[in-house]
Amino acid sequence: MSDLTTGASSAETVARQARTAFEHSSQLLSSSSSADATRSSALLSIRTALESNKARIVEANKLDMEAALVLVEQGKLSSSLAARLDLFSKAGKWESLLAGVSDVAALPSPLDHVQWAKRLADETATQGAVDLYRITCPIGVLLCIFEARPEVVVNIASLAIKSGNAAILKGGKESKHTAAVLSGIIAEALEVAGLPKGLIQTVETREDIQSLLHLEEFIDLVIPRGSNELVKAIQREARMPVMGHADGLCIGYVHSDAELEMVKGTVVDSKTDYPAACNALETLLVHESLLGKADFWPPLAQTLLEAGIELRLDEASLSALPQKLTSRFEEKVKRAQPQDFHTEFLDLTLAIASIASLDAAIKHITTHSSGHTDLILTSTHTPNPAAERFVKSINSANVFVNVSTRFADGFRFGLGTEVGISTGKTHARGPVGLDGLVIYKYVAKSVGGGKGAQTAGEFNKGRKWAHREIEAVYPEL
Amino acid sequence: MSDLTTGASSAETVARQARTAFEHSSQLLSSSSSADATRSSALLSIRTALESNKARIVEANKLDMEAALVLVEQGKLSSSLAARLDLFSKAGKWESLLAGVSDVAALPSPLDHVQWAKRLADETATQGAVDLYRITCPIGVLLCIFEARPEVVVNIASLAIKSGNAAILKGGKESKHTAAVLSGIIAEALEVAGLPKGLIQTVETREDIQSLLHLEEFIDLVIPRGSNELVKAIQREARMPVMGHADGLCIGYVHSDAELEMVKGTVVDSKTDYPAACNALETLLVHESLLGKADFWPPLAQTLLEAGIELRLDEASLSALPQKLTSRFEEKVKRAQPQDFHTEFLDLTLAIASIASLDAAIKHITTHSSGHTDLILTSTHTPNPAAERFVKSINSANVFVNVSTRFADGFRFGLGTEVGISTGKTHARGPVGLDGLVIYKYVAKSVGGGKGAQTAGEFNKGRKWAHREIEAVYPEL
Repeated sequence: MSDLTTGASSAETVARQARTAFEHSSQLLSSSSSADATRSSALLSIRTALESNKARIVEANKLDMEAALVLVEQGKLSSSLAARLDLFSKAGKWESLLAGVSDVAALPSPLDHVQWAKRLADETATQGAVDLYRITCPIGVLLCIFEARPEVVVNIASLAIKSGNAAILKGGKESKHTAAVLSGIIAEALEVAGLPKGLIQTVETREDIQSLLHLEEFIDLVIPRGSNELVKAIQREARMPVMGHADGLCIGYVHSDAELEMVKGTVVDSKTDYPAACNALETLLVHESLLGKADFWPPLAQTLLEAGIELRLDEASLSALPQKLTSRFEEKVKRAQPQDFHTEFLDLTLAIASIASLDAAIKHITTHSSGHTDLILTSTHTPNPAAERFVKSINSANVFVNVSTRFADGFRFGLGTEVGISTGKTHARGPVGLDGLVIYKYVAKSVGGGKGAQTAGEFNKGRKWAHREIEAVYPEL
Repeated sequence: MSDLTTGASSAETVARQARTAFEHSSQLLSSSSSADATRSSALLSIRTALESNKARIVEANKLDMEAALVLVEQGKLSSSLAARLDLFSKAGKWESLLAGVSDVAALPSPLDHVQWAKRLADETATQGAVDLYRITCPIGVLLCIFEARPEVVVNIASLAIKSGNAAILKGGKESKHTAAVLSGIIAEALEVAGLPKGLIQTVETREDIQSLLHLEEFIDLVIPRGSNELVKAIQREARMPVMGHADGLCIGYVHSDAELEMVKGTVVDSKTDYPAACNALETLLVHESLLGKADFWPPLAQTLLEAGIELRLDEASLSALPQKLTSRFEEKVKRAQPQDFHTEFLDLTLAIASIASLDAAIKHITTHSSGHTDLILTSTHTPNPAAERFVKSINSANVFVNVSTRFADGFRFGLGTEVGISTGKTHARGPVGLDGLVIYKYVAKSVGGGKGAQTAGEFNKGRKWAHREIEAVYPEL
């Protein structure tokens, strides 16, 4: 457990230790042909250490829970948030925390992949060839800021270790005891496994974060997980890249040729499977030609209402519903306000608007979507020009055709795990897996023993560039 | 030519127009099976427009040159900087500007590449399969800030158009007339070619930039090209990602087993081929065992001195040189100060230090390098554990083995063109080609006509994930 938890100078110490630990670990593992095996076995040691130190963790978690219950009584913390602090009461939570560590250990390494390789120049009478490799490598030092849930410490630490990075973690203040104990156990286990313990550290105060966000010489990437406000505040302050894990205002559009049953099933799932998730549907646009169809719009609305969804309807979609239906669901049928189409409800509420055309839907989405996940519901027959136009025109991270927005998730995408979901436009987007925690370096080498210097100058004197693709395998060095 | 050149509100107008133009162009080209052909033919129209408007450009360039000459006389501008403004006096410069546009047009499109594709779930009795594609797409709106050279306007505009992005350009104030005319001609030609003219705009003042750096809702990426100070100032201010094109402090290390002739040739090329470039060598570390070899270090130093390089030598490397040599090159042989190992000389000066081991060299580079390009000179025979350890331990963008640092360049890497060289740790690194101006989106679709809804909920009721790689070709929509 670090005792360096306050003030700018201690934040700098933490950052410097993280940088040193990162560099040290790169060197430690450089001669090993099985760096990934070392990292994975360190993760398994961490799992074992967590298991054997369960009593310490239970105790720290109790401290956090007790403090949280006081806050709940004072009305300063919601009881649902307090419940999320609890690592042990809910069956399976502790076991799934442990399983997460070994699952990450078992993932394929994201490092040392040759993304492509190229012969830059062929051999000459006096020189070897020159080959270039683009090879994945760690980013360096990550600063991960998240709210309440203490298990995120273990999750992020596992991902950082597997991807060869160092991480500085800052959880919510409500979980500080648990987070500190978890991180301390991880650091100890790293040391026993022969890796620098500075690879995983925690800080506790906002002042620390404030200082760290200005230490771009030590920290390479900030990953905030939490509310939109948290992410925006960090983006304003940080001098290094931020991989924003913002919330999502996801929009679906029902095209004129969509089949009713498919629309019903997809919209209900998108809205109700987990309404508080960032990939839940918040707005549904319905092509106006469908509103007049008695066998489409009223039964669709009825299905949504029966699923417990409150509808915020614009004028056209509301007036197209039969009186009988609106009366029956009086409390769930509301007239939409303009603000409803800018709102992430995160509960069983759905804003609905009539829309004149595919292009109008594209325009609405481009204006209102948060760029997370947007969906077209249309005929499943190909070729489908509407689907094609939608996919090419919408610049969101996830653009879906006849698939529930709830599929936008690292596990469902088969990424093995999820660092978070990014709505940014650079580096990594959408569900971010382990490969969002790596970058690449270029390695160029002269090939063939006993040959002369490889100079740029010679290409002005007649040597030719080859620029020919070669097999993308790790170079023989 | 935009008349919106001052103040926060006009900057916002420019940013908003850029965003609208970007979205508009995505939609315009969404139905085209040959979006790249449209973009490339717009580039060829731009080339033609530049040629036929040469007189206007000559005139504007004269205005800038006249103003620059006044500044040179007042001692406020270096004459070399003034000379870089001139588009027409130096033979071939104008022609190469034009050729650059058609060269970019001829490059393969970086867009609509399927990076990978996966079957998420197989077909069931009632449902089609679900497939996922990761497809490259434009980033959005780029803000490109660069110094003096007006031809960069044309270069960046070409790259932005080819990659489907919009760009707001801000050149040095010394080239403002030329930049405005070039950008105006490009915008007109875009409009004639049927693309939104707002795709390429210029702003002129620092206040504009100040405002634009806070407009993260419109601008997705900032690309500064210029001095370290410029890049750092922008990183501090920007609320969106910055792809930094900083300068380079490149370091070479001569391992104990390197061959003299290869070392001579590589170091002379790395230092002298273009000393002002960011990929020129600035520091050479020599393994201490080589200093005592009369047939290695003195002849190497002599070769460097004969090539016109001033050497800043540490105690050990200086005292290992024969008096005869140091006297002969008295003016070029200096004792190194500590600061010399933190200095990017950008001229024919090289700092030299003796180093005790490969690990000490790695430590020196990790501490002093700017992360641009670092080099080991060692035996060219494989396996070479020193080369392997160096490549794995050094986390710079370019890590070279027996290849001149001058190879670190987009053209030499065969990237077709170069947006710049990034020393950042996310998104794109090293020489950045067109693929540094794109990102990806995830497209998921239900496969097979007339089938039911694709819901996440079903996977809790027994449907199985497939997560199987499928052919990475653009989906049939």
